[in-house]
Amino acid sequence: MSPEPPRGPFVRAIPAGDDRQRLVCPDCGFVNYENPKIVVGSVASWEDRILLCRRAIEPSRGLWTLPAGFMEMNETSAGGAAREAWEEARARIEIDCLLAVYDLPWIGQVQMIFRARLLAPDVSAGPESLEVGLFPWDEIPRAEIAFPTVGWALDAWRARRGTAPGFAPAANPEAGPR
Amino acid sequence: MSPEPPRGPFVRAIPAGDDRQRLVCPDCGFVNYENPKIVVGSVASWEDRILLCRRAIEPSRGLWTLPAGFMEMNETSAGGAAREAWEEARARIEIDCLLAVYDLPWIGQVQMIFRARLLAPDVSAGPESLEVGLFPWDEIPRAEIAFPTVGWALDAWRARRGTAPGFAPAANPEAGPR
Repeated sequence: MSPEPPRGPFVRAIPAGDDRQRLVCPDCGFVNYENPKIVVGSVASWEDRILLCRRAIEPSRGLWTLPAGFMEMNETSAGGAAREAWEEARARIEIDCLLAVYDLPWIGQVQMIFRARLLAPDVSAGPESLEVGLFPWDEIPRAEIAFPTVGWALDAWRARRGTAPGFAPAANPEAGPR
Repeated sequence: MSPEPPRGPFVRAIPAGDDRQRLVCPDCGFVNYENPKIVVGSVASWEDRILLCRRAIEPSRGLWTLPAGFMEMNETSAGGAAREAWEEARARIEIDCLLAVYDLPWIGQVQMIFRARLLAPDVSAGPESLEVGLFPWDEIPRAEIAFPTVGWALDAWRARRGTAPGFAPAANPEAGPR
């Protein structure tokens, strides 16, 4: 059996009036304008403990992450971060301020991470989490963190602990992975 | 002559494993995951004058805007803002800091506006601008501004004029259009 021919927008071409290649569908002409996506998330705390989620899905299944995910249409960035906290950890949070903005051009992402307070400490795993937990700073499973930006955001949170909002959000650390 | 049938991803359906409607192509099955797009731009100044561009394209053709546009793949947010300043105004800029982050959920956008310095005052219209200019604050054509966020960002720039980086970026004003 021969493999199915590829379908959908898989041909690279420069559309009329544009100046760079986009993925175009040879069947229907649809142009898939691909732009960076926004990941929204939070470092959400209850007293001195931080909410982390152990991922039930790839990539990095089994490792710990902050509640975060792709921002959806028709929500605000802070609203998306609160939605993700609910979806991944059944956590109700109150956004405090923008903690960090990370550029990840090598995967086409901008991550907006907020500082937040849990409104109650009762959290539980949503469908994309194996388990969730509230970790004192010294008990964060640093060796089992899912992504570099999780570590960056945790460090940014620690560096600003106890400070009022009004600070500039953290950016990529100088010695980032690229 | 009967009209062409619609083509491309135009059917709303919930893909397997998802929880919300996406646009799907009935011909090839391609799912067009649509997420908010990032607009990157700058309030770029030379001495006390601010760079503005009169738009050569719709929407708001003929009105004045900041150099800004959709962030592209494989660039940073600040890099994208510098690219837009070049494309729209042939301006070389140095990014200072993040001035404002605006949520526009009603059109699926997050705007990241940077404070920047022009490296030289020689600017000229790029292909998407009718003309460009360097305006003292009191001569900004306020009645001919293209978009509300342009006015918001100008006000954010003025409120922080002379301050060092390290401030929290401005957000939507309380009395936004929504």
